[in-house]
Amino acid sequence: MDPTKQLASYLVSSRLADVPADVRHEAHRALVNIVGCSLGGAREPAVEIAMRALGPYSGKPEARVLGRAERFDPLLASLLNGIASHVHDYDDTTPSNYIHPSSPVASALFAHASVHPVTGADFLHAFILGVETVTRVGDATYPAHYEAGWHSTGSIGVFGAAAAIGKLLGLPLQNMVWAIGLAATQGAGLREMFGSMGKAFHPGRSAQAGHLAALLAREGFTSGEFPLEGPRGFAAVTAREHDLAKLTRGLGTEFTFLGNTYKPFPCGIVIHPTIDACMQLAAGRKLGAEEIAAVRLRVAPLVLDLCSKKQISKGLEGKFSVFHAAAIGLVRGRAGLREFTDETANDPDVKIVREQRVTATADPGVAEDAVRVEVELANGEHLEKTVDHAIGNLGRPMTDRELEEKFHDQAVLAIPADAVDHALALCWKLGELDDMRRLIDAAVPAEG
Amino acid sequence: MDPTKQLASYLVSSRLADVPADVRHEAHRALVNIVGCSLGGAREPAVEIAMRALGPYSGKPEARVLGRAERFDPLLASLLNGIASHVHDYDDTTPSNYIHPSSPVASALFAHASVHPVTGADFLHAFILGVETVTRVGDATYPAHYEAGWHSTGSIGVFGAAAAIGKLLGLPLQNMVWAIGLAATQGAGLREMFGSMGKAFHPGRSAQAGHLAALLAREGFTSGEFPLEGPRGFAAVTAREHDLAKLTRGLGTEFTFLGNTYKPFPCGIVIHPTIDACMQLAAGRKLGAEEIAAVRLRVAPLVLDLCSKKQISKGLEGKFSVFHAAAIGLVRGRAGLREFTDETANDPDVKIVREQRVTATADPGVAEDAVRVEVELANGEHLEKTVDHAIGNLGRPMTDRELEEKFHDQAVLAIPADAVDHALALCWKLGELDDMRRLIDAAVPAEG
Repeated sequence: MDPTKQLASYLVSSRLADVPADVRHEAHRALVNIVGCSLGGAREPAVEIAMRALGPYSGKPEARVLGRAERFDPLLASLLNGIASHVHDYDDTTPSNYIHPSSPVASALFAHASVHPVTGADFLHAFILGVETVTRVGDATYPAHYEAGWHSTGSIGVFGAAAAIGKLLGLPLQNMVWAIGLAATQGAGLREMFGSMGKAFHPGRSAQAGHLAALLAREGFTSGEFPLEGPRGFAAVTAREHDLAKLTRGLGTEFTFLGNTYKPFPCGIVIHPTIDACMQLAAGRKLGAEEIAAVRLRVAPLVLDLCSKKQISKGLEGKFSVFHAAAIGLVRGRAGLREFTDETANDPDVKIVREQRVTATADPGVAEDAVRVEVELANGEHLEKTVDHAIGNLGRPMTDRELEEKFHDQAVLAIPADAVDHALALCWKLGELDDMRRLIDAAVPAEG
Repeated sequence: MDPTKQLASYLVSSRLADVPADVRHEAHRALVNIVGCSLGGAREPAVEIAMRALGPYSGKPEARVLGRAERFDPLLASLLNGIASHVHDYDDTTPSNYIHPSSPVASALFAHASVHPVTGADFLHAFILGVETVTRVGDATYPAHYEAGWHSTGSIGVFGAAAAIGKLLGLPLQNMVWAIGLAATQGAGLREMFGSMGKAFHPGRSAQAGHLAALLAREGFTSGEFPLEGPRGFAAVTAREHDLAKLTRGLGTEFTFLGNTYKPFPCGIVIHPTIDACMQLAAGRKLGAEEIAAVRLRVAPLVLDLCSKKQISKGLEGKFSVFHAAAIGLVRGRAGLREFTDETANDPDVKIVREQRVTATADPGVAEDAVRVEVELANGEHLEKTVDHAIGNLGRPMTDRELEEKFHDQAVLAIPADAVDHALALCWKLGELDDMRRLIDAAVPAEG
């Protein structure tokens, strides 16, 4: 059977009962994480601006945006959920392809489920299938797709939103193929947007576009029949090398979701090892710029490919600067949302360390989740730290407890502090909810 | 100055008075053509289905879709206008890059101008700038972008919609750069969709996405600053080879619009020479399948790359079959909308000639607007015809009068016959209208 059809066939016939318990637990962890990120980002300028620009074009205001009182139509709500949940670069990552899979999938699902009655079980199932789809398309086209310059959370995330919404809509096989096709032909998102609001726009636009693909396909809007594997299909066009066997091998028995990870720091994942190492070096000290003489990083080549900006003035840019990462790790000893604000980007100590003390060398011998850091202090002291597996990666995953703390830190930015525990509890038992609106209602502030 | 900024700067500062009269006349011809195509496609299934699927998600129903009584929000109307105007593959083509530039640009502009007061002069100017933008991005990335498998009417059309709407919104320079950036990062559309509704979806989605990009940019939603030329920008990511000098060279003095062409037949332009030759061979005869023994085509290699399907059952597929092209030219002696219906695709005479009589050879010595046709008749007669420049191309452009006939043929499908001349007259004097709604009102049927 052709790969797209085989994937569509699996999506149509899959039953939640056939999904192993560990996968379902991992999906709950991912949902705790992405709901937290959605709340943490809900009041950011990128969301406010998009709301101001597009709100006047919204359809019937019935769908919810997590963390917001306003209502919009489900397609616009998908876009806004997606921007909010990725804007801090704090959402999950699949290290096999560097995609942030939950944002495009969950953003569409929450918008849909805020308007239509959806059980927690159906939601969970659609979410798992959406993430499975994203990860498999990602694995099949990695690394060529990503290296070409695509921000795959956008260009590939769209498949997950289409699959997930398509599942909730109960699409039959042919329509599911078209949903995948209409997703494929909307796949877009350039890495050139990194450091601007355009980056968070990508999973939002994917959520909206995948959602739209499923709606069109349901009514019989056709696409090509071989959108992934055809000679002018997504794989051939966007990835010089690809292996579509990865799309379908072990479908239904091997769940790629178990390879998902959660970020302890709200920034590009490749600079996490540097933060981790520098925080460990700074532990118990209070280092100012004048106390630091030099910082030398040895990092994987990809890190400098992605994150080599030194002169920055925006918090958003700091999320993709390994120099900023080292600076905040040493000067602040932490890397929460506050360390990636414009204010911190322009903090004199942080700025001096970032721009005048830190140097970085690309070393093919250093793995992407590792780093080697040397610090010379002004007093002559020499510090060294090697991190082999940064916290948050598969070898050192965040615990459920750490995910809860992360949820708390973000949720208080959007909903009353005394409502946070309730929302969190509903996330953990999402699979048992009779109607997803119970959780969604708990994850929005009271209406003005 | 960086290419994107230079383009944006031109868009912001351009004045209609600086656009030569011949360019303005060509723009009117393009508008006559695209309004006709919009009317001709307005009642097609692809439009009906999209309307049924997405209508319930529409915002305030105030914007018009040409040829339809229903109203939608301007973004959805952009999408629907785009599908309608391209669904017959009857719209214009820039032979330098095979893009159909008017559909994505005009579709967004008509939606916008149906809601906001826009003078004909401003509309015309924005349209010219939008098409200029599309053609220049297209020329700068052709042929690598197209050969990679992108349907550039979709993937590049989005730039034109963003530029045109951005101009009408009066965006300042920085915001125009972001509009271009947010367009670039939505650029998508796979040639794998050819032969399905997905193809017409492309300019529709581009019109909507470019429109959305301009709206977001106006409110300050940021993008990368180098979306076209950056190392991970549109050119580098989507075209292995590109020449960004073509984006800006002669901006404001050389107008690429003068290289635009209009289709006499509603199908892929590369099969036009075959239709032209076969119609000439059939002139004055009435050929049935039993009278035709063999048809041999020598065509440019690109023709078989794009249009090599023989076994088809849908009219849409016929638009991309050089075998169908030969069959209708010989059997029907014409190639109007009726020759690309499902009914004609399954007509026994057409089917037998297409599938059992016609063979085609790719010959690098044959130009893309040429063909050599040999026909053996059952009675032993041998016919030959060589076409060097198919009708409709730059060497043999359609006259204003032929464009008017084409307009008529299509417009009667959507508006009352006695309203067609009025609508056509308004198109020709579009640049003088005080409010574009005069034309738009004439190009929709009375509301139910």
